[in-house]
Amino acid sequence: MTSERLLLGPGPSPVSARVMRALAQPVLSHLDPEMMAILDDMRRRLDWIFGAGEGALSLAISGTGTSGMEAAVANVTKPGAQVLCVVTGYFGDRLAQMFERYGATVARVDIEWGRACDPSVVERALSAAQYDIVAVVHAETSTGVLNPVQEIARLATAAGALTVVDAVTSLGAMPLRTEDWTIDVCYSCSQQGLGAPSGMAPLTFSARALARKVPSRSFYLDLSLLEDYWVRRKYHHTISAPLVYAVQESLAIVEEEGLESRWSRHRRNHLALAAGLEVLGLSLLPPPPERLWTLNAVRVPEGIDEAQVRRRLLDEFSIEIGAGLGPLAGRIWRVGLMGAGSTSSNVLLFLTALERVLSSMGYRRAASASSSAVTAAESAATN
Amino acid sequence: MTSERLLLGPGPSPVSARVMRALAQPVLSHLDPEMMAILDDMRRRLDWIFGAGEGALSLAISGTGTSGMEAAVANVTKPGAQVLCVVTGYFGDRLAQMFERYGATVARVDIEWGRACDPSVVERALSAAQYDIVAVVHAETSTGVLNPVQEIARLATAAGALTVVDAVTSLGAMPLRTEDWTIDVCYSCSQQGLGAPSGMAPLTFSARALARKVPSRSFYLDLSLLEDYWVRRKYHHTISAPLVYAVQESLAIVEEEGLESRWSRHRRNHLALAAGLEVLGLSLLPPPPERLWTLNAVRVPEGIDEAQVRRRLLDEFSIEIGAGLGPLAGRIWRVGLMGAGSTSSNVLLFLTALERVLSSMGYRRAASASSSAVTAAESAATN
Repeated sequence: MTSERLLLGPGPSPVSARVMRALAQPVLSHLDPEMMAILDDMRRRLDWIFGAGEGALSLAISGTGTSGMEAAVANVTKPGAQVLCVVTGYFGDRLAQMFERYGATVARVDIEWGRACDPSVVERALSAAQYDIVAVVHAETSTGVLNPVQEIARLATAAGALTVVDAVTSLGAMPLRTEDWTIDVCYSCSQQGLGAPSGMAPLTFSARALARKVPSRSFYLDLSLLEDYWVRRKYHHTISAPLVYAVQESLAIVEEEGLESRWSRHRRNHLALAAGLEVLGLSLLPPPPERLWTLNAVRVPEGIDEAQVRRRLLDEFSIEIGAGLGPLAGRIWRVGLMGAGSTSSNVLLFLTALERVLSSMGYRRAASASSSAVTAAESAATN
Repeated sequence: MTSERLLLGPGPSPVSARVMRALAQPVLSHLDPEMMAILDDMRRRLDWIFGAGEGALSLAISGTGTSGMEAAVANVTKPGAQVLCVVTGYFGDRLAQMFERYGATVARVDIEWGRACDPSVVERALSAAQYDIVAVVHAETSTGVLNPVQEIARLATAAGALTVVDAVTSLGAMPLRTEDWTIDVCYSCSQQGLGAPSGMAPLTFSARALARKVPSRSFYLDLSLLEDYWVRRKYHHTISAPLVYAVQESLAIVEEEGLESRWSRHRRNHLALAAGLEVLGLSLLPPPPERLWTLNAVRVPEGIDEAQVRRRLLDEFSIEIGAGLGPLAGRIWRVGLMGAGSTSSNVLLFLTALERVLSSMGYRRAASASSSAVTAAESAATN
């Protein structure tokens, strides 16, 4: 039996008992009438959670969030397409690479890691050249930064470009409305805000995106073939029944909680964590208005071996947090509070565990302020 | 709760309670030390089940068998590559399409659906032109046909080509040895012979294939990035823990049973089914030496509504069998006996259920021979 971890890293997030039970239902084949009814239900729920408009197509790719990213790119990118890609971290960079692999000419808007993209930078780029596609990561999981997707999409749409948005670490946890925000293609994953295991990538294409769809070079990720399966029940691939059940159940849970309550819960627990960390003398990488509620990029204090802290949290408390990626390796921890993991108990437990580990490693601020971190978190959560 | 089906279609095959229990273990993240140990164990087990040689790389793609097919193609196909593709059914045709999407020039060896490819046809093609790659489906799931992969791979290797083999419906159920048979790239899926749910695609590249690897246009299926993750523990995608657990457990079950015992079991139950069907006056599409042990293509008798038979088996017995694909739609049923589903009890239950349904629909042969189908099956199984 594998160990029970408290998953407070950059994903996967904790999977509730209810979702685990759904996962373990009897396996149906990909063409069973019951399976087709479940997929119909999922399409409706995905339309709802994305806030998709009339004529949109929402479904889930049989793969992780990265396959969702590649499916988004593969179905709208002609060789030679002009793409403006906002890069504020590791996943923005990956998105730019993906477009290049599909033959696009990519102009990058590179922003310092840890900061959001100012929409005026996009505005200037759009006035200087014509782009087919503007792409941006909503919640940059590598830096804990929220990009102003609504403003960027408005500018892109006004300039006649399609907007492609990565919502891997925001869907189901932070405000996102594809139709209202004029987002054309948006993808996510199953294991962050939704709280299912990884392995499926929810995806939506607006009517406008469907009208500009291009032949996909990928067969596995070809939206026309996927639509044949999801909508017209024609075999394309053998969808994974347990993952479908888990995602369907997680969408039902989101619907029961209500999207806005869910967003509030994520906000509240993020603010509690930030307040507690501040008392411990720790700071978050992005400035307050640019912070995600789902993923907290915590600066590693001077003189502390960051890998040892992660190892001790795992060994002594079975708590997983994440390391920094790329230029942030060794400089930040990534602490996720997503889906079922975003609870006040998890905030308090994590602060207590972190304080103990740090203080035993000789970290001074932690030792002197140990009792008030939890109090500060509790007080932030009830305000 | 979804219905409990007896999955006797072209896949997925039944998932045992043991594999379901493994699936439901606590979710580990993709970089947890315990997960990395599981992946190391899986690589060893995959090397073993494929019969991979020194210097091979075996891992599993995070997607269905179709993603395995695309990964195989994406990592060895340069634009302009000359590919000889044997097409004996729907999946051979899909394989040819996949190579074309990745820019290859594909010469097809088209064989009548329901028959295997004679190696001499490949031999002639190889002597007439130079090919970089020879591709063939081992177990053609659409027609129930076994192709002589060992002979074809020997010819391809002698001609200097890489051999790409689809083992979706043979791995773990029918003889297949990649090193001994000089197969360079071989992929399969989790939900047929292995008996796990769908969602992962075991894949192996020989040392020779690795030496001829080309830059992958797909990011998600890029073998170099996948190797970075599986071997060097560098993040590429968030592997699905439940699927990993299920595949690992199914590989452990195969190892415990023993590959040769497992092959014998599949052969015995296939022969029992064929004997029983014969007594019912039903015939299989391929001639005996070309038949799969995993998937039986049963000709629909004259005057019988094939869809109604499938629907009644599902509604009255909760037994799933498959329909024909492409030119075989309406002309065959596809009856799978794979993995945990290949048992003598399933053969007897299926024959009994089919006979009842057919006889109630006025099928004459079934009514007259009802008691001896089961006897014939039992007798074939013990011979």
